[in-house]
Amino acid sequence: MTIRRATAIGPANIAFVKYWGVQDAALTLPYNESLSMNLDRCLTTTTVEFDPALNADEVTLKLHGQDEQPATGRPFDRVAAQLDRVRALANIETQARVRSENNFPSDAGIASSAAAFSALTLAAVAALGVDLSERELSVLTRRSGSGSACRSIPTGFVYWRNDGTDAGSYAESVAPPEHWALADVVAVVDPGVKSVTSADNHRLTATSPYFPVRLQEVLGRVEQTLTAIRDRDLGQLGAICEADAVSMHVVSMTAIPPTFYWNAGTMAVIHGLRRWRNEGLFGYFTIDAGPNVHVICAQQDAAEIEQRLRALPEVQFTIANGPGAGARIVEQG
Amino acid sequence: MTIRRATAIGPANIAFVKYWGVQDAALTLPYNESLSMNLDRCLTTTTVEFDPALNADEVTLKLHGQDEQPATGRPFDRVAAQLDRVRALANIETQARVRSENNFPSDAGIASSAAAFSALTLAAVAALGVDLSERELSVLTRRSGSGSACRSIPTGFVYWRNDGTDAGSYAESVAPPEHWALADVVAVVDPGVKSVTSADNHRLTATSPYFPVRLQEVLGRVEQTLTAIRDRDLGQLGAICEADAVSMHVVSMTAIPPTFYWNAGTMAVIHGLRRWRNEGLFGYFTIDAGPNVHVICAQQDAAEIEQRLRALPEVQFTIANGPGAGARIVEQG
Repeated sequence: MTIRRATAIGPANIAFVKYWGVQDAALTLPYNESLSMNLDRCLTTTTVEFDPALNADEVTLKLHGQDEQPATGRPFDRVAAQLDRVRALANIETQARVRSENNFPSDAGIASSAAAFSALTLAAVAALGVDLSERELSVLTRRSGSGSACRSIPTGFVYWRNDGTDAGSYAESVAPPEHWALADVVAVVDPGVKSVTSADNHRLTATSPYFPVRLQEVLGRVEQTLTAIRDRDLGQLGAICEADAVSMHVVSMTAIPPTFYWNAGTMAVIHGLRRWRNEGLFGYFTIDAGPNVHVICAQQDAAEIEQRLRALPEVQFTIANGPGAGARIVEQG
Repeated sequence: MTIRRATAIGPANIAFVKYWGVQDAALTLPYNESLSMNLDRCLTTTTVEFDPALNADEVTLKLHGQDEQPATGRPFDRVAAQLDRVRALANIETQARVRSENNFPSDAGIASSAAAFSALTLAAVAALGVDLSERELSVLTRRSGSGSACRSIPTGFVYWRNDGTDAGSYAESVAPPEHWALADVVAVVDPGVKSVTSADNHRLTATSPYFPVRLQEVLGRVEQTLTAIRDRDLGQLGAICEADAVSMHVVSMTAIPPTFYWNAGTMAVIHGLRRWRNEGLFGYFTIDAGPNVHVICAQQDAAEIEQRLRALPEVQFTIANGPGAGARIVEQG
């Protein structure tokens, strides 16, 4: 028996309409559909090597700016569980060596697990030669537990459809990266580690009395976002991004117990953007489960926005991305 | 005919459950009931002098730290309209000279209009010898347009009842000031003037999809607050204050168009309070229509909390109050 290996790259993505709340934790089925853009420069590269000589999976992670480290505990268990799903499809039991490397800071407000689990799933599937459509690959990636990772499989602008079933909760591209010269400039106001895990978040959403209102609103927002992407309408997309981010944080702040992700820097950036728009510079905020702010703007305005963000005392650094491709194989066999 | 005059003092108040949204703007009928505490040190003193020699009302305001100035435009019109309501009750047409003085900074997150309109209404009523019960006086004060001013009429801890009718929307005391040694320490993070008027706020609330949820929640909160005041239960009162303030700001941030009152300093104080509670120092936030944060705590902890608040770089100054009496006459005839 031989070693079977593949290397894949997975991108991070930024959601315009957020995944917030898990309806079925075992299958990672969300309450609502979501829409995102893959990031072209925030990537994870993962090599998976199924080796008959191994007695157990081995996982090493190289985070940005850190030495390579073996994964243990929960991070290891999540990788091994995803490898198990791929092994089940291939009907094998061979253990694997996984090496994963991030080219962007972890916990800087860019969802690294989406990049990681899209790269892992694609590399493992490719190594074993499992024949899956893109849709099936996104379903398998979703089941990793990092639901938004399914949106990092298709290219460009991505729609995570959801009908509440395993096969009907998948991501598909609605436009390639070159469709729209957008930028996502992340203003990092606190690079610290999140104090509430995503898993806890998704569980807590349902305790908020505002969550049912959010779910109703999202139905309309998904349609409006598809139209805004089709028409390349930044004003419309920006309004949706901001309303959806506020709505997601409303749910967090009104959950039992509440979580306040926003900090001083978050508000400084929100108010900065609102001032700059009055001056004719159009950047719109969206905020994931942390204090850092993603600013969505035209690529031609990204440099000016990045400069102004860096001039705010609360902003520690910025990371700029354009729309990117989905997960792809870079080496196989 | 002689000059008829009276001088009254009106306190500011801080709401534990907020008045947010006006159902009938002509009568200033709120959508929901609210509860507050009068402040013992933030006061307006107003003298009203009905003088047959006058051809028109004359209003001068002396704001804290500023010279006395004649009121014009909208501030003048609101005072004159309230004098008209009192004149109608007394069946006279004599014009008045009004002099009003605030002993606390305006626009520091302490509702100065509640102090001003409670003092104005009481002084005008006393000057003309109109015979009103406390309940009738609170109804008349409410109709000034500054609805929360009705809560500054009764003493101590005050419940603004509302059954949707003019006579049934009045404030009454639920406990005297000495019932509970609470403090309200205001952390002023931005003493600037509000960019959205209260009138606009109250109109915009109904555009938020979250407003109906807030109205449902408030029903329970009013009951819980009455219990917390009765039992002097700071943990319970604090939890309500924070949830209600978040809910009010949720409505603002999701109104069309949204208003973001919170700024960098607001979040710095919120996170400071949460850290300090973990250390055993119990202060709870509430936030009116602005960025400044009112910290509700036991009087014995007020000095420590004030010191910690002042140590935050975002906090410019603090103002501490205990529970206070309602509006009172200090000079008559």
